[in-house]
Amino acid sequence: MEQYILVQKYGGSSVANIDRIKSVAKRIIESKTKHNQVVVVVSALGDTTDELEQMAFQISSKPPEREMDMLMSTGEQISCALLAIAIEAEGYEAISFTGAQVGIKTDKTYTKARIQTIDAKRIRHALTEDKIVIVAGYQGVTHNNDITTLGRGGSDLTAVALAKALKANVCEIYTDVDGIYTTDPRIVKEAKKIKTITFDEMLEMASLGAQVMQARSIEVAKRFNIPIHVRSSFSKEEGTMIVKENEKLEDIDVRGITCNKSEAKITVCAVPDQPGVAARIFNEVSKIGVNVDLIVQNVSHTRHTDISFTVPRTDLNKALEATKKIAEKIKAGEVVHDKNIARVSIVGSGMRSHPGIAARMFQTLADNKINIEMISTSEISISCIIHQDSSDLAVKTLHKKFKLGRTI
Amino acid sequence: MEQYILVQKYGGSSVANIDRIKSVAKRIIESKTKHNQVVVVVSALGDTTDELEQMAFQISSKPPEREMDMLMSTGEQISCALLAIAIEAEGYEAISFTGAQVGIKTDKTYTKARIQTIDAKRIRHALTEDKIVIVAGYQGVTHNNDITTLGRGGSDLTAVALAKALKANVCEIYTDVDGIYTTDPRIVKEAKKIKTITFDEMLEMASLGAQVMQARSIEVAKRFNIPIHVRSSFSKEEGTMIVKENEKLEDIDVRGITCNKSEAKITVCAVPDQPGVAARIFNEVSKIGVNVDLIVQNVSHTRHTDISFTVPRTDLNKALEATKKIAEKIKAGEVVHDKNIARVSIVGSGMRSHPGIAARMFQTLADNKINIEMISTSEISISCIIHQDSSDLAVKTLHKKFKLGRTI
Repeated sequence: MEQYILVQKYGGSSVANIDRIKSVAKRIIESKTKHNQVVVVVSALGDTTDELEQMAFQISSKPPEREMDMLMSTGEQISCALLAIAIEAEGYEAISFTGAQVGIKTDKTYTKARIQTIDAKRIRHALTEDKIVIVAGYQGVTHNNDITTLGRGGSDLTAVALAKALKANVCEIYTDVDGIYTTDPRIVKEAKKIKTITFDEMLEMASLGAQVMQARSIEVAKRFNIPIHVRSSFSKEEGTMIVKENEKLEDIDVRGITCNKSEAKITVCAVPDQPGVAARIFNEVSKIGVNVDLIVQNVSHTRHTDISFTVPRTDLNKALEATKKIAEKIKAGEVVHDKNIARVSIVGSGMRSHPGIAARMFQTLADNKINIEMISTSEISISCIIHQDSSDLAVKTLHKKFKLGRTI
Repeated sequence: MEQYILVQKYGGSSVANIDRIKSVAKRIIESKTKHNQVVVVVSALGDTTDELEQMAFQISSKPPEREMDMLMSTGEQISCALLAIAIEAEGYEAISFTGAQVGIKTDKTYTKARIQTIDAKRIRHALTEDKIVIVAGYQGVTHNNDITTLGRGGSDLTAVALAKALKANVCEIYTDVDGIYTTDPRIVKEAKKIKTITFDEMLEMASLGAQVMQARSIEVAKRFNIPIHVRSSFSKEEGTMIVKENEKLEDIDVRGITCNKSEAKITVCAVPDQPGVAARIFNEVSKIGVNVDLIVQNVSHTRHTDISFTVPRTDLNKALEATKKIAEKIKAGEVVHDKNIARVSIVGSGMRSHPGIAARMFQTLADNKINIEMISTSEISISCIIHQDSSDLAVKTLHKKFKLGRTI
C-alpha cells in the first residue's frame, strides 16, 4: 500500500513561545493521525534569529560568514528539539534532526548556501519506525561538514527540498496569515483569499508572497512540481494551494494585484543611442551589488534616449553615485531620481489568452487621474510605476475593475 | 622543531556577556602570541544552559534525553561561534567547531555520555594553518551521528580529552576563582591558594574542587598524566597546578581542609550481625538511585551492630523510606536520621608518611569540644562527621593547627 507523505513547515511566529509550540505539536499529531507519515520543518523561535545576529554584530561589524552560520543555525536546532519534546509529551514518538544529520549538503556560500543533494536515509528510516520527524530548517552542511545556512526564509526551501527528496504528496507552509490574497487586505478590505494559484503567478506576486513564502522555494517547487499549501497555524481553514496548472480557474484573467513601495527610480537622460551603453550602465550598478528591478528604455527617434530603472530605496544613494559616474563617462545628460514611486502590478496566467487587459489597466488608472511613469510587462503580469501617493487608490480601483472581490 | 600546544577551557562565567567574550578573545590572542598553538574549549554563555533546560521543562516534565542533548548542545555552539567572531574581529584567524565536527565520539548514554574516541584530524589541520581553534565544550556525537552531552561540567572533560588527543603540554581551566585554596576562604580568611596539588589530593578535595572542576575530568587527567592549570579568567596571576607528583612539597602533611554540609546521616540500629545484611541494605538504597557516601559499621561485640551512612540531603526522604523497608525485612531495630551534620576532611598525600595526623585531628576537635559522630579514612584523607553548628569552628582550628595559613 502506498503511503501518504506530508511535509509541513512552521514559521517562527508559529513557534514563538512555549504555548504555541505545544499547540503546534497538537496540530502535527492531528495530521499524523490523518496521514501516514509526517515530516516537519521548523524555523527558529520568534525573534531568536534576530537576537543571535545582534550579538554577533555587537562583537564585530563584519563577522566571518562561516561563524555566522555556525551561530545562526542553533536557532532552528533549539526549536526542533523543543517541538520533538512537545510531541513526545503528548504520547507520540518524535525525533529531531539538524540539517547535517539528514544529509542536506550545500555548496560553500555561507549565509546563502544552495542545496546540492539530500540523502534522506535517516528520515526514511525514522518514518518506517512510525516516528514524527522534525527537521531544523534553514541549514545544511558542506561536504567538509561545515554548517551553512540557506538565507532568510530558508526554512521554506528546506521544506520544499525535503518534499522533493521524499516524494511527498504535499508541502504545507504554516504561517501567521491564512493564505495568499488578491491584494493586501490592509489596503483593500474586499481582498479575497485565493484558493488556487499557479507557481508562475505566485512568483510574479512576490511582493505579496514574500511575506508568506520565499521566492526561491517557489521556484524549486515549480521545477519539481511540488504542490504547496500556504495556510495559517492559528486556524483550521484551508489556505491557498500553489500548483502547476490551474485548470478550474483558467478563465480568470487577473489573479491578484501587488503594490511595491520600497523602490526608487533613477533616470539617465539623454543617453547617446549607441549599442552597448545600457550594458555599461547596468554593469556599473551591478558591480556595487545593487539589484536593478524594472528597466525601461524608450525607442529613440533622435540620437539620444532616456533610460529609467528602479532599485531598492535603501540602495538609492550608492546606485545614484555609480550611475552619475558612468553617465559622465558615456557622455549622457542629467541623472535624476524619484523616491516617491510605487509599482502596481496585476498578475494572472489568464492574461495570455485575454487580450486587452493592459488597456483596461491603463484606462482605469487614467479614469482616476493617476499618471503612469513607467510600464513594464511580462507574459503574466503588467506593472506600472506611479506616484506613491496614488498607489492605494490605484490598487483599490484595479481590484474593483477586475472583479477580484467576488467569491472565487 | 616541536611545537608547544596549549588547551584552554573557559567556563560560562568567563563568557557571560559580550564584554567578557571580547576580553577572553584578547586573552586567547595573548596566549597565541606566546605559545605556538592554542585550542580553546568554551562553555555556554552564563545562564544559557539553565534557560534552555527551563524551556524544555515547561513543555514536559520528562523530556526525552536524546532531545535534551540536541537542545542543550546549542549553548556551547553559540558561545564558540561568538568567541571565534571576537578573535577574528581582533585580526587573528580563528575557526569554531562543534563536538561532532572535531570527531568527539561518545557512547549513547544521553545527558551523561562518555567519550570513546577523538579523531582530532580537523583540529590538527586548522592548527597547521596557524588558526586558533575554538571547540564547543560538553558535547559529542554517537557513532550514528546523534548529538550527546557529557553532563554538567562536561566542558572540563572536553578540554582534558582534547589535551590528551593532541598531546598538549598543559590544559588550562579558566574559571571565576583564581585557584584551589587550602580551605574555603569564606570560612577561613587565612586560607591560602595552593600552588601545586596532586590529582589524588584534588580528587579527595572534590567538595572544594567541584566548584572549579569536574571530578571526572581530574580522573581522566590523572590517568593520562595531563597537567592542569586552574586559574582565573579575570586576573593574570598564576593559579593552581594539578599534577601527578608533588616532589617539592612532599613534606607537607596536610594540603587542604574541606567541609561538606550537603549530606544527611542515616543510622540503622541493632542490625543482626550476620553476613550479607550490609549488602542487602545498600543494594536497596542504590536501587532507588541514591549515592551513599560515607559508611561506618562498628565492630560488634554482641549479636547486633549499628550501621551509619550518609546520603545527599536532597535524597534523604527516599533513602529513609527504602532503608526503613529493608530494616524491617532484615529484622533490624530503629532507623534514625540526622540532617544537621557536616563532613570535615583533611586531605594530603603527605599523610602516608606522617603518622599521627589522625590523632592530631581528633585532639584538635576534642580541645574545641566538638563531638565526632563518624570517622572514615582513605589513604590520603581523614573525614569526621560532626554537628553542623560546629563545622566552621572545626575548619578554622584545623586550618590553624596544620599551619595551612603560612605561605607555601
